[in-house]
Amino acid sequence: MPPERDITERIRLLSRKHSEIILGIGDDCAIVRPPGSKKDLVITTDLSIEGVHFHADASPAAAGAKALARGLSDIAAMGANPEYCFISLAAANKRIIDHFYRGLLSWDVPVAGGDLSRTDKIICDVTLVGSVPRDKALRRDGAKPGDGIYVSGPLGGFAARGYRIPPVPQPRVRFGLGLRGRASACIDLSDGLSRDLHRLCLASGVAAKLDEIPVAQGASLHDALHGGEDYELLFTAGKAVKGAVRIGAIVAGNVGAVSYRDKLLKPRAYDHFPRR
Amino acid sequence: MPPERDITERIRLLSRKHSEIILGIGDDCAIVRPPGSKKDLVITTDLSIEGVHFHADASPAAAGAKALARGLSDIAAMGANPEYCFISLAAANKRIIDHFYRGLLSWDVPVAGGDLSRTDKIICDVTLVGSVPRDKALRRDGAKPGDGIYVSGPLGGFAARGYRIPPVPQPRVRFGLGLRGRASACIDLSDGLSRDLHRLCLASGVAAKLDEIPVAQGASLHDALHGGEDYELLFTAGKAVKGAVRIGAIVAGNVGAVSYRDKLLKPRAYDHFPRR
Repeated sequence: MPPERDITERIRLLSRKHSEIILGIGDDCAIVRPPGSKKDLVITTDLSIEGVHFHADASPAAAGAKALARGLSDIAAMGANPEYCFISLAAANKRIIDHFYRGLLSWDVPVAGGDLSRTDKIICDVTLVGSVPRDKALRRDGAKPGDGIYVSGPLGGFAARGYRIPPVPQPRVRFGLGLRGRASACIDLSDGLSRDLHRLCLASGVAAKLDEIPVAQGASLHDALHGGEDYELLFTAGKAVKGAVRIGAIVAGNVGAVSYRDKLLKPRAYDHFPRR
Repeated sequence: MPPERDITERIRLLSRKHSEIILGIGDDCAIVRPPGSKKDLVITTDLSIEGVHFHADASPAAAGAKALARGLSDIAAMGANPEYCFISLAAANKRIIDHFYRGLLSWDVPVAGGDLSRTDKIICDVTLVGSVPRDKALRRDGAKPGDGIYVSGPLGGFAARGYRIPPVPQPRVRFGLGLRGRASACIDLSDGLSRDLHRLCLASGVAAKLDEIPVAQGASLHDALHGGEDYELLFTAGKAVKGAVRIGAIVAGNVGAVSYRDKLLKPRAYDHFPRR
């Protein structure tokens, strides 16, 4: 067994030993349940690095707004309410920190804590805590054959613009809240439809057939199928949901296989550590 | 008002609006209380960057062990139990990630979630969640004139070794648990005695007089007074605590003023953003 697998396995075993961790690594957020708590907490952490997650010429304010938007989108995918966040930030000077925070605070999420350091490039890690009634969080693993596949809006717009900010993506928090009790599975589209739907299918043990994809203005079909960072919600449901576009159906079949108009679609979007 | 002050003020105001945030920015951890929860959660986040928080020639395993040790020390300073953590990690390749995680997992803290990215230098942000019975967390703001000032061990060892790892600092988690109900205030010594005691005094609205400092083997008095990263606990208490060394007393006086043998001690340790 290669050492990486070994470490992943050890991480999984360790986290299973903790009774308050309802769901660990492998979804948009972890789900934890403090003893006696009326709600489940969902927690996500997103690292944003200048030159990796946003262009070096982006304004610090836009970078700050996007850093928290990524976390808010993870919270949205769980059907949860955002509560408070922790911000670890490193930057070259106070002026950049000031502008970065201005963008970040535009979402009006309370900052409960954080860390501050100095580096040449902006580095920010956002930990965002949300809440959801017990056992009501949306997960990736509930899709069943026969469910429709839906998205909350047109895709590929960010890829078509070369991932430049602004505009900052608008996380679908309100939309996600409306999916509780309706969606059988949900994920946010951060890494592209082909990859994220593949992940949802793997988690649920199903396959997917796509037919009609809503393409954002100015984007190509390729952008819509494989482009990342749209931050729309991708979900499955037995019945149609108002405001969502049906793009296909869940089927039995090779677990994780996604096809578009009967042609197999390989997951192609951005991956920091592609398998070799 | 300079823009930085303005942002800090806005962060404070926003966090005060959230009823579940018992204590926000300004202590070793935030304290939050999910509705119905029997325990308070304490949450800390620590950014570790290669070349800033550890030397570039440190082994990834030692860097990983230290990254989590810093968070564990914050949890110790609150008198809390570590529960689970979230790890955002960026590094050049899988081998480094593997070794970094091996070091980090040596503390046996479950990893509930995280993020992974690729960069030349190692960047890691650790979010650590701990728990403590309601209202029992140790804080920085409870020191009173007449209290003794104590440390959990000799100081300056890390500074004397040029902050090289290994050895990785050993956070005083068990010692911190024993301080609940005994210490009136507590902080961990991450940034040096002179600075951290100054912070504790500011938070508590008091001053401090030091007389006898336990100096680590091989360290100078200057190392012990100003060197960072010892990760011993500094606390105040009305009565002596077994295993701790008394180093002085809390007095009324200029708030934040710390003197050593009747000479004013300026806070001198490492600061990422010194005031200009």
